Amino acid sequence: MHTIPIQIRFNDVDQMGHVNNAVIMEYFDLGKELFFQQHGMPPEKADFTVMIVHFEVDFQSQIRFHDRIAVETEIEGIGNKSLKVLQRVVNSGDGHVCATCRTVMSGYRRSTGKSEVIPPEIRALLEKKE
Amino acid sequence: MHTIPIQIRFNDVDQMGHVNNAVIMEYFDLGKELFFQQHGMPPEKADFTVMIVHFEVDFQSQIRFHDRIAVETEIEGIGNKSLKVLQRVVNSGDGHVCATCRTVMSGYRRSTGKSEVIPPEIRALLEKKE
Amino acid sequence: MHTIPIQIRFNDVDQMGHVNNAVIMEYFDLGKELFFQQHGMPPEKADFTVMIVHFEVDFQSQIRFHDRIAVETEIEGIGNKSLKVLQRVVNSGDGHVCATCRTVMSGYRRSTGKSEVIPPEIRALLEKKE
Amino acid sequence: MHTIPIQIRFNDVDQMGHVNNAVIMEYFDLGKELFFQQHGMPPEKADFTVMIVHFEVDFQSQIRFHDRIAVETEIEGIGNKSLKVLQRVVNSGDGHVCATCRTVMSGYRRSTGKSEVIPPEIRALLEKKE
Repeated sequence: MHTIPIQIRFNDVDQMGHVNNAVIMEYFDLGKELFFQQHGMPPEKADFTVMIVHFEVDFQSQIRFHDRIAVETEIEGIGNKSLKVLQRVVNSGDGHVCATCRTVMSGYRRSTGKSEVIPPEIRALLEKKE
Repeated sequence: MHTIPIQIRFNDVDQMGHVNNAVIMEYFDLGKELFFQQHGMPPEKADFTVMIVHFEVDFQSQIRFHDRIAVETEIEGIGNKSLKVLQRVVNSGDGHVCATCRTVMSGYRRSTGKSEVIPPEIRALLEKKE
Repeated sequence: MHTIPIQIRFNDVDQMGHVNNAVIMEYFDLGKELFFQQHGMPPEKADFTVMIVHFEVDFQSQIRFHDRIAVETEIEGIGNKSLKVLQRVVNSGDGHVCATCRTVMSGYRRSTGKSEVIPPEIRALLEKKE
Repeated sequence: MHTIPIQIRFNDVDQMGHVNNAVIMEYFDLGKELFFQQHGMPPEKADFTVMIVHFEVDFQSQIRFHDRIAVETEIEGIGNKSLKVLQRVVNSGDGHVCATCRTVMSGYRRSTGKSEVIPPEIRALLEKKE
């Protein structure tokens, strides 16, 4: 499982005293980015890329400033034009899950501005086990 | 329909040249907050509140720095312990939808730390048409 | 005076109950960006641009979620290779100043990666009164 | 020297391709917070606290997504009602300084809403070497 610790910032915490929901999406974003890099995906500005078209998130327990947390990322499935990513924010102390995110990403070619089949070489990179 | 214009900030736009997905969640967050206020909901720090337990988002078209956009917010349904909020980021120029968010919020009492039935007076406030 | 209203977001407010200092810098950033645009400056990605090399900020009074605020921006001076921008966040209700920012920006050419004299045509644009 | 590594997030980088200036202030903020905690300062919500009244920042070199950076924090001086904090963002690879921040913080009592002399016990905590 691809796992990165997350550094919580002071201003990630809102007036409710817990990490703001929108900020948790930044954590998932970073998890995806580093997962893709580690798997040798072309850089952000390459002509072929994958873009988020849908995500759904369950918020299971609140995160506070002093919590130690990590983001886990794995591929749930790769279709013809899209792939599914499963992620969790987990508490590194006792392992409980704080939030779960399922993301659908679509192959996209910048030069055409259109969605595109995920090429076999990208598929191979993503299916590679860590 | 409860609608607020959104002011896009320079640093909402990431290196891909469009508004970052996590930032779009800040827009939806602000839409909810102002919707609840306008409907007379107790302030953020009241003992009874509603908390986000789930959301799912479709990203339909990219948002750029110079786009004029707005967030629309409405109640989709109110259950016993939860309510559903439907929101859209729309382009104020031609009206196309950039992103759609469905949120499930749960009644929550701070002093007990437990989820709680949505009281009739809150239900009445939220069912009130704008 | 170039003035833009600022839309405060829910998560701009930190656990201290006021708008976080780093977030106030986003307000100043947006003020500069829109000031430059209005004065016809080349877009962000043009080869010649101006970059922030220094700023100093006085925080005079706290900003809360429901405050109505605006950012005022003006040119304080234009030197050979740099320019000085003066900005204030003001409360639109009673006009009191919440924060004052003085920024030094330097002419910069991307293709050379070096600082550069501010060309006469840019100087003319910036000296133009609103 | 109190030093913390900083985790750069994907959306810290703006469309110019470098970490946004306002975001760098979040790094300095986190550095201060953790410095104060390590020195045993009362928590954020204690009645006596210190608040930022002024900062000035030199941006010496751009920060990119893949850079490894750290924030260094030290006390420059403690006056009667204020203290001065010196911070640097340094590149952990070759040690060059990316940004330098000098902050003036003022003693502040929440219950009175007034600035206040820094009490001897707080002064002692801050003067303590790491």
